[in-house]
Amino acid sequence: MGKRIGVVLSGCGVYDGAEIHEATLTLYFLDKAGTKVVCMAPDKDQFHVVNHLTGDEMPERRNVRVESARIARGDVKRLDEVKATELDGLIIPGGFGMAKNLSTLAFDGANAQVDEDLVALVMAMHGAGKPIGALCITPAVLSKILAERGVRLTIGNDEGTAEAIRNMGNTHVESGAEQIIIDEQNNVISSAAYMCAASIAEAGVGIEKLVAEVLKRA
Amino acid sequence: MGKRIGVVLSGCGVYDGAEIHEATLTLYFLDKAGTKVVCMAPDKDQFHVVNHLTGDEMPERRNVRVESARIARGDVKRLDEVKATELDGLIIPGGFGMAKNLSTLAFDGANAQVDEDLVALVMAMHGAGKPIGALCITPAVLSKILAERGVRLTIGNDEGTAEAIRNMGNTHVESGAEQIIIDEQNNVISSAAYMCAASIAEAGVGIEKLVAEVLKRA
Repeated sequence: MGKRIGVVLSGCGVYDGAEIHEATLTLYFLDKAGTKVVCMAPDKDQFHVVNHLTGDEMPERRNVRVESARIARGDVKRLDEVKATELDGLIIPGGFGMAKNLSTLAFDGANAQVDEDLVALVMAMHGAGKPIGALCITPAVLSKILAERGVRLTIGNDEGTAEAIRNMGNTHVESGAEQIIIDEQNNVISSAAYMCAASIAEAGVGIEKLVAEVLKRA
Repeated sequence: MGKRIGVVLSGCGVYDGAEIHEATLTLYFLDKAGTKVVCMAPDKDQFHVVNHLTGDEMPERRNVRVESARIARGDVKRLDEVKATELDGLIIPGGFGMAKNLSTLAFDGANAQVDEDLVALVMAMHGAGKPIGALCITPAVLSKILAERGVRLTIGNDEGTAEAIRNMGNTHVESGAEQIIIDEQNNVISSAAYMCAASIAEAGVGIEKLVAEVLKRA
């Protein structure tokens, strides 16, 4: 039987949800490897809705899970329904949804609050020694969940976010989008993806490596 | 200089817009090959908005180009602004957006109306002998634009849609998602993608081949 990997989605679109290219390439590389993928997202409203053409806020409300279902083609579980015992590994793509819907990182930096269902799942996976992969801005959210453990993570080369990670009691490792950073002790793998990638193919190099590394450890 | 390939988007989500996996993998394979990609979408309201979790219609309005910008990360031209002379080839991913926003294929079959800006661009590309790639349900829309020319196309194995293509005066070729069908004379390449693919990796096999074939001819 194939390995079971959970993928946490935070909406549908880089500025208010999950980064679509990161999420889709994650699903693509997992599926190519014969993985059983379990997509999940919280059943709550997005922080806000952003017009991705203009960057302006739009006067409407959208639900994180309902919008995530666009990326998952309908099949997306409620985040609080998925148990760590059902999974061999977890991958969390980026996008502002991770920093605005699943945490308050975009507003509060090192003092961010994180969605309690995400905290519970990550802590259970981590406690069971299962691999966790994080892309783009997500390593900073993961850093908050796993604060004060000296976790080695990358979000690329953004100094403000790197400082927030250090202020959470973890270690930031500078990297490019084509690299992955592996924390052997914590079984955490990260790649900067669109935090510094200039294009989808560049982000894809790191994402492909991250998926392979998570699967190797799952 | 890299080749310039246009990608037509019809929203963001399989049930009311562009199929996200097909669109994203198209962008990925194009970018891997060093292509200059020009994303475009019509600036008009979607036919409707579908909750991708439940399949129900939602009581709201969304703009095709604004939602397409989620897939394009903001950079999506107005369909009526792009000229065939600026492009070496064109690829049109699928999703119900092609059958509901850019045409009335979902409702009218062989009698479908097609967005006039899409018709103009496709006719100009075709007239200039430039390659056109179509995924999923899009070959049926392309068939309507290029009616009565005996174009050889595939939408997989859906008999109702195949019959509509024949009624448009073209030829349907049955295929699986891992294949592409090439019409040498019309320089049209098609692949069934999610019209019959069981998974993203299966769709990806055909999409990767289609992108390579369009680039070879561009």
